[in-house]
Amino acid sequence: MNIENNERLTQIYQFYGILLTDTQRKYFSDYYFDDFSLAEIAENAGVSRQAVFDNLKRTAKLLEDYEAKLGLADNFAAIDQGLDSVLASLNEDNKEQAILKIQQIKQLIEEN
Amino acid sequence: MNIENNERLTQIYQFYGILLTDTQRKYFSDYYFDDFSLAEIAENAGVSRQAVFDNLKRTAKLLEDYEAKLGLADNFAAIDQGLDSVLASLNEDNKEQAILKIQQIKQLIEEN
Repeated sequence: MNIENNERLTQIYQFYGILLTDTQRKYFSDYYFDDFSLAEIAENAGVSRQAVFDNLKRTAKLLEDYEAKLGLADNFAAIDQGLDSVLASLNEDNKEQAILKIQQIKQLIEEN
Repeated sequence: MNIENNERLTQIYQFYGILLTDTQRKYFSDYYFDDFSLAEIAENAGVSRQAVFDNLKRTAKLLEDYEAKLGLADNFAAIDQGLDSVLASLNEDNKEQAILKIQQIKQLIEEN
């Protein structure tokens, strides 16, 4: 697997893991969260190492496809950053800017 | 079809329609947005009325399953209402309440 993408993948998993099958969730969780090796997961499940590898590859693709289509991770991150920006405006007692930023967030939500 | 649920279904479709197949999207759009009858959709597509009916039933179930699992429509509605509530607090010049409400929205996002 590509270790560099793990952080992104586990982040996306928080959103779309619920759409996966039980087996996909089990292998994913074993591999990315509990640091089992492919060989260990394969032995525990009574399948080949290749089967686990293929399953994990397919899961990664599914998760990336969901994010490409629904963009939940990106959208929620954008809303969260927008809210931080509203808080910063309020801390500066700039009410007009805070209102403007809230309206921008509302627009982002409506376009979704 | 159950006419009473149409509004909810077309609302959910805005979020998850992108996850459907082209045919599912076509029938759904013809039926719910363009008011074609089942017989008309069937004739245009060269399939049976029953096939269109079954397809629409399955699409409705898929959309409801996605919303039950991901809750996008409900979550975005909750965030949008929360933002309206922040705006109301700002209009009343109640900065502390506005900040509290923003933090509640951020918590809602993080729990997602």
